[in-house]
Amino acid sequence: MRYRRVPDETVRRLSVYLRGLLFLAKQGRQNISSRDLADFLGVNPWQIRKDLSYFGGFGTPGVGYKTEKLTKQIKKILKLDSVHKTALVGVGNLGSAVLAYPGFRIYGFNIAAAFDTDPKKIGRKVKNITIEDVSNLQTLKRRKINLAIITVPRDAAQQTADALVKAGVKGILNFSPCHITVPKKVKVITLDIARVLARLPYYMSAS
Amino acid sequence: MRYRRVPDETVRRLSVYLRGLLFLAKQGRQNISSRDLADFLGVNPWQIRKDLSYFGGFGTPGVGYKTEKLTKQIKKILKLDSVHKTALVGVGNLGSAVLAYPGFRIYGFNIAAAFDTDPKKIGRKVKNITIEDVSNLQTLKRRKINLAIITVPRDAAQQTADALVKAGVKGILNFSPCHITVPKKVKVITLDIARVLARLPYYMSAS
Repeated sequence: MRYRRVPDETVRRLSVYLRGLLFLAKQGRQNISSRDLADFLGVNPWQIRKDLSYFGGFGTPGVGYKTEKLTKQIKKILKLDSVHKTALVGVGNLGSAVLAYPGFRIYGFNIAAAFDTDPKKIGRKVKNITIEDVSNLQTLKRRKINLAIITVPRDAAQQTADALVKAGVKGILNFSPCHITVPKKVKVITLDIARVLARLPYYMSAS
Repeated sequence: MRYRRVPDETVRRLSVYLRGLLFLAKQGRQNISSRDLADFLGVNPWQIRKDLSYFGGFGTPGVGYKTEKLTKQIKKILKLDSVHKTALVGVGNLGSAVLAYPGFRIYGFNIAAAFDTDPKKIGRKVKNITIEDVSNLQTLKRRKINLAIITVPRDAAQQTADALVKAGVKGILNFSPCHITVPKKVKVITLDIARVLARLPYYMSAS
C-alpha cells in the first residue's frame, strides 16, 4: 500500500538477519561471510549484500561482517536500539501465550500493558502485568506506548485497531487472520499463522 | 542450510501472494495486474513477476493475472491442492490458541491430532480433538500425518522435534524461539513472534 525507498521485504529480511546474528553472536562467532550467514538462514548471499547496500553496506570483501558490529547496525536501522513499550489487547489463550513468550526482550520490547473486555479477567495479573479494561486504552498516549499487539477474536479486530489508532498507536501486530484498515501513518503487520504453515508442504514432497 | 533452484524466499512470497489472492477472490476480483497485487501486498511488482517466472509465469502483459487461476496455480506449486493432516504437540495457551485458530482450512490444513505430557490434559477434548499422550506420537506414520506444529516450552522443543522426526514427520512449524536441529530431509520453519514485532519500529519513526 505504501512505497518507500527501502522495500518492506528488505525490512523483513533485516529482521531475519538480525535473529541469525543474535544467535551466532551468542555462540561466540565474531566474523561471518555473507555466504555463511546466507547458508545459516537459508537465503541468497547476494540478497544479504543487496539489502545491506541500502544502508551503505558494512562488510569487508573476503573477510565478511563483524557479527557484533553488524548486529548493532541492523538494530539501529530497525530502530531497535532503544526499548519499545508495547501493549497487548485480548488476553485469551493466544494473548496469554504472547505475554509469556520469552523472546521479546532480546529485541528491546517491553510488554507493559494488557487489556481485555472480560470483567473476570480485568484486575488479574498475568506475568506481572495487571489486565486493564479496554476503556483504558486511551491512556496509552500518556504512557508513551505506541506499539500494540492484537490478540482478540477476529470479529473484534477492526474495532480494536480503531481504538488503538485513536489512542495514538503507530504500529500494530495483528494476529487475527483478517485484513485491518488503518490510516496511512499507522503500520499494521498481520501474522497469519496458517500462512506460515502453508510454506511447509512444498518442501515435504520435494525431499 | 539447503540450496534448491527455487529460493526459500520465493516459496515464502508465494504464500504471501496466495493469501492476497484468496482475499481478493473472496471480494469478487477476477483480474489483477502484478502492479495492483504488489500494491495490495506491499511488495515490488517485479518481484512477483520474477517469482512466478520460476514456474513459467502466468500473466498476460497489459491484462494481468486471472485471480482464480493464479490462486489454483500457486496452490498447486505449494502442494496445497490437497488436504494435509497436521499434528500439534503442546496444548498450553499457545497450543490451544493454534487449535482454535480459524485460518487453517482455507489452505487445506486439517489439525487432526493433539498431544501433551500433562495427565490432566490427556483425554480432554479441544475443538473436537482428543488430547493424546505424547507416547502416542509414534502412531503418526500409520495415521498418515507428516506435518506437525510444536507449541511446547522452549526447553522441550528439541526433544519434541526428535520424536516427531522418528515418527516420520517431514515438516515442522516451531513456535519456540530457539534453533532446532533436524535431518536434512525434514523442513523446519521457526516462527519467532518477537521477530515479527521487530519489523514495526522501523515504520513508526519514519512516519
